[in-house]
Amino acid sequence: MMQVEIITIGDEILIGQIVDTNSAWMGEQLNLIGLSVKQITSVSDKREDILKALELASTRAKVVLITGGLGPTSDDITKPTLCEYFNSKLVFKPEVYKEIERIFGSRGFVITDVNRKQAEVPECATVMPNHNGTAPGMWFEKEDTIYVSMPGVPFEMKGIMSDYVLPRLKERFTTQAIYHKTVLTQGMGESMVAARIEDWEKALPSSIKLAYLPQPGMVRLRLTGVDTNYERIKALVEAEAEKLIPLIDELIYGYNDDKMESVVGQLLAAQHATLATAESCTGGYLAHLITSIPGSSEYYKGSVVSYANSIKTALLDVKESDLEAYGAVSEQVVSAMAEGVRKIMGTDYALATSGIAGPDGGTPEKPVGIVWIALASASGTKTKLLNLGTNRQRTIHMTAINALSLLRKEISKKF
Amino acid sequence: MMQVEIITIGDEILIGQIVDTNSAWMGEQLNLIGLSVKQITSVSDKREDILKALELASTRAKVVLITGGLGPTSDDITKPTLCEYFNSKLVFKPEVYKEIERIFGSRGFVITDVNRKQAEVPECATVMPNHNGTAPGMWFEKEDTIYVSMPGVPFEMKGIMSDYVLPRLKERFTTQAIYHKTVLTQGMGESMVAARIEDWEKALPSSIKLAYLPQPGMVRLRLTGVDTNYERIKALVEAEAEKLIPLIDELIYGYNDDKMESVVGQLLAAQHATLATAESCTGGYLAHLITSIPGSSEYYKGSVVSYANSIKTALLDVKESDLEAYGAVSEQVVSAMAEGVRKIMGTDYALATSGIAGPDGGTPEKPVGIVWIALASASGTKTKLLNLGTNRQRTIHMTAINALSLLRKEISKKF
Repeated sequence: MMQVEIITIGDEILIGQIVDTNSAWMGEQLNLIGLSVKQITSVSDKREDILKALELASTRAKVVLITGGLGPTSDDITKPTLCEYFNSKLVFKPEVYKEIERIFGSRGFVITDVNRKQAEVPECATVMPNHNGTAPGMWFEKEDTIYVSMPGVPFEMKGIMSDYVLPRLKERFTTQAIYHKTVLTQGMGESMVAARIEDWEKALPSSIKLAYLPQPGMVRLRLTGVDTNYERIKALVEAEAEKLIPLIDELIYGYNDDKMESVVGQLLAAQHATLATAESCTGGYLAHLITSIPGSSEYYKGSVVSYANSIKTALLDVKESDLEAYGAVSEQVVSAMAEGVRKIMGTDYALATSGIAGPDGGTPEKPVGIVWIALASASGTKTKLLNLGTNRQRTIHMTAINALSLLRKEISKKF
Repeated sequence: MMQVEIITIGDEILIGQIVDTNSAWMGEQLNLIGLSVKQITSVSDKREDILKALELASTRAKVVLITGGLGPTSDDITKPTLCEYFNSKLVFKPEVYKEIERIFGSRGFVITDVNRKQAEVPECATVMPNHNGTAPGMWFEKEDTIYVSMPGVPFEMKGIMSDYVLPRLKERFTTQAIYHKTVLTQGMGESMVAARIEDWEKALPSSIKLAYLPQPGMVRLRLTGVDTNYERIKALVEAEAEKLIPLIDELIYGYNDDKMESVVGQLLAAQHATLATAESCTGGYLAHLITSIPGSSEYYKGSVVSYANSIKTALLDVKESDLEAYGAVSEQVVSAMAEGVRKIMGTDYALATSGIAGPDGGTPEKPVGIVWIALASASGTKTKLLNLGTNRQRTIHMTAINALSLLRKEISKKF
């Protein structure tokens, strides 16, 4: 497989001020088009370190992807260093300046001299527009090796990669046909899923590889087929996926790039059904996941984040006596929250969450990590008790995913 | 400053299956004891790639920290490769086996042959116990260079680093003193901040370096001082920070590891004041940021995510006539939302958001990215119009940060 190297530039990575998430995303995307990452190198904003890293990377790979160090300020020296490496000089590019003007104009900002410098790029570079920021992507070729320099801000880098770099690399280097199919599961750990599908996995043809990609609360199973013929390998991968599906049917919530929140949204939209939420421990995160999907206003009416108990009684009709008798984290209260928000928002479905995300608030009977979720609908109210451990952010995330999963299963039944 | 290199081993990093968070943590910890990371290198589980990475790292640094590839399965070849590199052989170490027995015993597991192999380590290694797992840490010295091999599981690596590696390195190498101070700003782009503080930056003493660390909607300014004397460099960095602060006073929301949402939380808690939110375009994300801070229930009562207009009128007392006359994305409606939620939740402050996050819903007069935010309090209602561009997730994030910033400024005035 064609080898690629990634170089991330920036002192902030080396001193641990930011975690480099770019490389993992790039590695995944490159794999999808049949290219493999040989090495990831993180170096400082020092001229000689960057030069050395470029030189060494070019001895190992035919493509070198570089992120970071393109800001307009003085500590960002990637551009002059690239000029030195490619024996080029910075020139002002009017088309880059136009893009900067467009971005600044649309936000009502005034362009300073420092911004103007963003339009200076090495003469030998082919510019790739950055629609999300002022530093453009740059494509270089030298002695049979391709170098691409991109900003380190993740969504700017992702835009340039998706719009330009990945399509160009695919066109140039992808000779084998590659077909991916990812089966998305929720509700069972990696090793238990592996045990369940062991026989199927062992019988996979040699042209198909299986990868387990665990995420909190989920396991993605990625099938990758490689062959000279696209239609043939696509058919083979799909046939193997068809054999896999019945083995883990109740765990599967989607395929490929689906997200739990988009799958649930599609199901609601197809049914012309509406949803509301009432959140305690998730504190708005469930609503955030649902509304992160464009077009969610079609089926989602809103949420009452009743962080304080007084809001649970005032807005959601939770009975004071239930709060006293059972506590806010109880099956009774979470059911009342779901039923209350369904009533006041007039929706078909309503989800509610109540739990102890921690680190404080736990008791011997209800330790940190105990969460109740509820789903109210015309056919009654369902509840589920979760025990999610002591990591606050993880508990919030897992609660939301479990709540969406509860709704998904309920709606799917009706199809 | 003494240079350290980090090598992370594992195919799962290169294909993007996991994000390498170990390096950032190690970089931060090493910095705190005055050691600096020269380079981070991620390589595959291939013998020759590991050997080459070790060899190159040793030409640049006196300390090489290695994580990963120590699992018991066949794809983990770090140990035999280390034997080859150090010209050593694997030997069974009873003290390591005892630790494995202890861990397995405490979890009620039976030790298999595969686990027993974890007690085999290169003869020339000094073993450092792993109290959280079965693969021990290993310390090597060769031709003046120290090599440390640790498991890749973050909490196992952190245990070995904290208990053994960091104290030993500190004792051996810490001669220079390092002091960091990061000034956190919001509300102005990197280049404009740079222009504002240009004279101050140029006059910085040579022992202090400035780095601009941009994040969506924010710029962090990190001052790093290096000297032989800790108290002296600390005083010098703090003195320079004192000169910087008045230049950008209205932009600064915190220092070092502060987050906007924790700073606002601390201000509210100090005032014994309470907060509620009413969200349209942020869709629960503002509530999520606020409640991501442990202890936020002390000052935060909740949110009404009024994604549908019917919820704005039913729950927040927004007038039907205002929605018709001005539209949901208007100064009038966002003010009514803030005032409405403040009233029903009985809080001191209330924030509201209404905007067009996109990609759909824009009009020529109100294009995608137009957002109104409002802050209601006893002293009246303030509003702000934002123009945030076309990236949905970014608009949601920037709106929430701007809303929190509006509140921060309002509360800070009172101190």
